[in-house]
Amino acid sequence: MTIDCHGHYTTAPKALEEYRKRQLADFGTPRWAPLKGAVAISDDQIRDSLESAQLRMQRERGTDLTIFSPRASAMGHHLGDANANRFWSEHCNELIHRVCSLYPRNFVGVCQLPQAPGVRPDNCIAELEHCVNELGFIGCNLNPDPSGGYWTDPPLTDRWWYPLYEKMVELDVPAMIHVSGSCNPNFHATGAHYINADTTAFMQLLGSDLFRDFPTLKLVIPHGGGAVPYHWGRYRGLAQDMGRPPLAELMRDNVYFDTCVYHRPGIELLLKVVPADNILFASEMVGAVRGIDPESGHHYDDTKRYIDAIDWLGAPEREKLFRRNVEKVYSRLARRG
Amino acid sequence: MTIDCHGHYTTAPKALEEYRKRQLADFGTPRWAPLKGAVAISDDQIRDSLESAQLRMQRERGTDLTIFSPRASAMGHHLGDANANRFWSEHCNELIHRVCSLYPRNFVGVCQLPQAPGVRPDNCIAELEHCVNELGFIGCNLNPDPSGGYWTDPPLTDRWWYPLYEKMVELDVPAMIHVSGSCNPNFHATGAHYINADTTAFMQLLGSDLFRDFPTLKLVIPHGGGAVPYHWGRYRGLAQDMGRPPLAELMRDNVYFDTCVYHRPGIELLLKVVPADNILFASEMVGAVRGIDPESGHHYDDTKRYIDAIDWLGAPEREKLFRRNVEKVYSRLARRG
Repeated sequence: MTIDCHGHYTTAPKALEEYRKRQLADFGTPRWAPLKGAVAISDDQIRDSLESAQLRMQRERGTDLTIFSPRASAMGHHLGDANANRFWSEHCNELIHRVCSLYPRNFVGVCQLPQAPGVRPDNCIAELEHCVNELGFIGCNLNPDPSGGYWTDPPLTDRWWYPLYEKMVELDVPAMIHVSGSCNPNFHATGAHYINADTTAFMQLLGSDLFRDFPTLKLVIPHGGGAVPYHWGRYRGLAQDMGRPPLAELMRDNVYFDTCVYHRPGIELLLKVVPADNILFASEMVGAVRGIDPESGHHYDDTKRYIDAIDWLGAPEREKLFRRNVEKVYSRLARRG
Repeated sequence: MTIDCHGHYTTAPKALEEYRKRQLADFGTPRWAPLKGAVAISDDQIRDSLESAQLRMQRERGTDLTIFSPRASAMGHHLGDANANRFWSEHCNELIHRVCSLYPRNFVGVCQLPQAPGVRPDNCIAELEHCVNELGFIGCNLNPDPSGGYWTDPPLTDRWWYPLYEKMVELDVPAMIHVSGSCNPNFHATGAHYINADTTAFMQLLGSDLFRDFPTLKLVIPHGGGAVPYHWGRYRGLAQDMGRPPLAELMRDNVYFDTCVYHRPGIELLLKVVPADNILFASEMVGAVRGIDPESGHHYDDTKRYIDAIDWLGAPEREKLFRRNVEKVYSRLARRG
């Protein structure tokens, strides 16, 4: 059994995107009425959007189950306010729920949160509870920078976020720390903002006692942990200079990296330096990079292939990263029917 | 001959820091008078500050020459205005000049620029010319985010920066793209802001035709290129999806990474994926990480040791990264007496 912990519904039927476009065209104008409205998508449209993409790739690549969430770059928390983003999140999450109901063996849901810049994360609790308790979701994506590239909200270690963490702990769900699009011209979304956010989040956690307050809080840092494994010596040294515990201890039951690293030398480095208990298999598919690597003849994001090719990786470690670690972090997986 | 292209005067005598403290205490108050003032430091104080640190490390580690610039984290472009930062830069650069005059075989200068958030980079040209033409400096450090973590100035590929690039090309000096401290609580300076800036700069360059306008402009991205080598497959794939040239071609005569990566697996990855013509030896010493790695018994930032230990690295590649590439990029090195 191979579980991919990081898949996005980037291939959703056009009607979803059109809803958001209409909503944002009205938002902030006299036409704006804070109403949820409807998104008309048929089951067949959902099937079509997945059969030729995520489902085909699951079959071809040999993954069984994808932990599936709305398109991260489209969350766009900086584009609306708490109301607009709530309606948008609800539609996105409802669509993920329909995907998981149509293909319960292939997908399990992780929700988008109705964050907005400067708005307390408490406003996300109702949607998180609804998604977990009523729609069977097993986690959430938490945007550490709802401003979309200006980083104007407090760090993840600030008490600002505590009410949401309390609810996550109560519900026993992890968060993947995942930014959305960037409205800052300095940051390319998938090429800079995503990776920077991963690195930033790790360094915030390294410097704080957040997990003393929340010993069972689990956070997944995607995209292979940003720059962290490549600069593992730098972070080990910084932790030491700052009088912090060793990285393995800091991460142990709380911080996990996924394997969304799109070449074999990068994956090898990740597996070499980061504890095997803290790595979750993932491919981000269909994600930031869609092409085929002319050097290998395979998709850049076919990360399972890189891992399968590493001959020094033992069977117990493979079992951990492809399945057991994911089951440990997304512990509500076990409650599925 | 081994040249370290990235050293900072982090051990400067206290009087320098005290000058800046006094200056910033006055800045913005009715006491503020835009005057340069003086920094009293004796030659013996300079000698003392180096003998026990950078000079000792050069001897111990077997590097001959360090390309030396003011402490990056203290540039603090976000703390003053163009005037205050000009006086501060002048003092910092003059001190580097004194270091290089006292130890001409050990150090060669790279200057700090008097940038300020929202101020056109044209205001840096006079100081750059002075440092290069009169003080014998061979490059500059360019801060891509003078706001100190809010990224409110235009990307490096914007015409905003062109007058400075024109002068750099005319003077035949490269810039190391190096942020300073962070006033954004989200970003730890050396653990997040530095690495994020490196990744950000690379992605800006990947998406632009800057080097069509400036075919001889040379930019050094420090700290091993941020997250880029670890995510080399991601960047190759993004370039391909965006219809951009292959990375090796994008970088060829214009973009270079240093070797400030503080563990062997990271250095190996860098040397494995990035073209040997685009890597410059560096240690950032005395820099972000000062401790001794208990696993190796050596300083984390003793990067030469990691490179020396890599048995698959050929002599021609070693010669390139320890010397020839540095001489190529910092071409005014050859004009030294």
